[in-house]
Amino acid sequence: MQLDQRALAHRSIRKFTGNLTAPERLALTNVAQATASSRFGQQFSLIHVADPAKRAVIAAITHGDFVAGPSGDLFVFVVDQHRNHLLMQNSGQSLANLENWDAFLAGVFDATLAAQNMAAAAERSGLGACFLGSVLNDPAQMIDLLNLPQHTFPLLGLIVGRPAETPEAKPRLPHAAVVGEDTYPKAVPLGDYDARVQSYYATRSWGARDESFTSMLQAQLTADLAHRNEIGAILKRQGFNLPDWAE
Amino acid sequence: MQLDQRALAHRSIRKFTGNLTAPERLALTNVAQATASSRFGQQFSLIHVADPAKRAVIAAITHGDFVAGPSGDLFVFVVDQHRNHLLMQNSGQSLANLENWDAFLAGVFDATLAAQNMAAAAERSGLGACFLGSVLNDPAQMIDLLNLPQHTFPLLGLIVGRPAETPEAKPRLPHAAVVGEDTYPKAVPLGDYDARVQSYYATRSWGARDESFTSMLQAQLTADLAHRNEIGAILKRQGFNLPDWAE
Repeated sequence: MQLDQRALAHRSIRKFTGNLTAPERLALTNVAQATASSRFGQQFSLIHVADPAKRAVIAAITHGDFVAGPSGDLFVFVVDQHRNHLLMQNSGQSLANLENWDAFLAGVFDATLAAQNMAAAAERSGLGACFLGSVLNDPAQMIDLLNLPQHTFPLLGLIVGRPAETPEAKPRLPHAAVVGEDTYPKAVPLGDYDARVQSYYATRSWGARDESFTSMLQAQLTADLAHRNEIGAILKRQGFNLPDWAE
Repeated sequence: MQLDQRALAHRSIRKFTGNLTAPERLALTNVAQATASSRFGQQFSLIHVADPAKRAVIAAITHGDFVAGPSGDLFVFVVDQHRNHLLMQNSGQSLANLENWDAFLAGVFDATLAAQNMAAAAERSGLGACFLGSVLNDPAQMIDLLNLPQHTFPLLGLIVGRPAETPEAKPRLPHAAVVGEDTYPKAVPLGDYDARVQSYYATRSWGARDESFTSMLQAQLTADLAHRNEIGAILKRQGFNLPDWAE
């Protein structure tokens, strides 16, 4: 096996030059569609957001000035059981199996796998990308903005473009803390990991700050989730049925 | 942009020759760790399952004889907020933000992105891979088998190896049905899509069968979910708090 070393070189890119060409966008969206799919149901949709007004709204939702553009191309990956609902609406059968935990996770897989496949293809082609999990800061507004119907959910954003920065890679957790052999990995001391993360943040070429892995986690414990605590209610409103008991 | 055409060539591979070498496994698990991560929390774990007895159990759960091996290497990607719980257990703060919808989806993102990044790197390196969403057929048994602690969940399997088959690509839904511009894609007639899927299944070199996209969806409506209807209950038992109302 000859591993393309770019597979190890992921960095989030937030500064871009210009926009993708239409053929480049088509190639990348084709990669998204070519991705593996749960039971081949293709339970996702993908929206390219070019309208400057919509990009400005998503930039505000995600607290990312760079998301407003105009450089870089913005995509939103959507869990989608709506299309299959339409196809099955005259089947005479209950559509409950398109609304339950299994169906929701199938859509989450399909949307997330497609997003990563597109990001990896972009990175291998010399482009850069940044995921925007922060679209979850306000799913209801995302739903309105993109006219998302029942049985869909805006899961993940991705911005892709020609990189105008070369950030350093963030150090990852020790391998043994994450990768297990035949069983869940044993808790391992993180050793100098906090110090290495602190050194990364202190010396990186853009926005040095005082931060360790532990301090990031601590901040998360007290973070204001804003609309993220509405995710369950919004999934229900969108027609998903995700009880916390066996049906 | 020069797109590596292998990015468009995904096929699920279920027949393999031999096993990965230890350096190959290390390279691929390093790719998984190098993947983008939600808020850099690295909320996933990855278990390489080599024990023949455990592979046999997972083969039974996933109804995939090829999963039993011995060829190909089996990995299970796990949503993991347990590690961060351990790191924060003496913080004196509530750990609710590591158990809610936001935390669960962060883990799902991290596990799924890592799995796809590993699969794509394997495919670009001449290896083949097949996702096993079917580990969800019996999450409770997966949890026991892999000794998964609280605040984890076995999300997705992936088998990777040197391909011993060259299956045809499955035709995808029409581009316009999946990809929207600034708004959710309009419902488009699927045209000859059912016929194309039917032709793929009728003529493929392994296991011809009579199947269209529509017939696959119809079968899903009446499928016996077995333990998949326990997913919500199992997530709750694992310590996740995923209400369907705003908290």
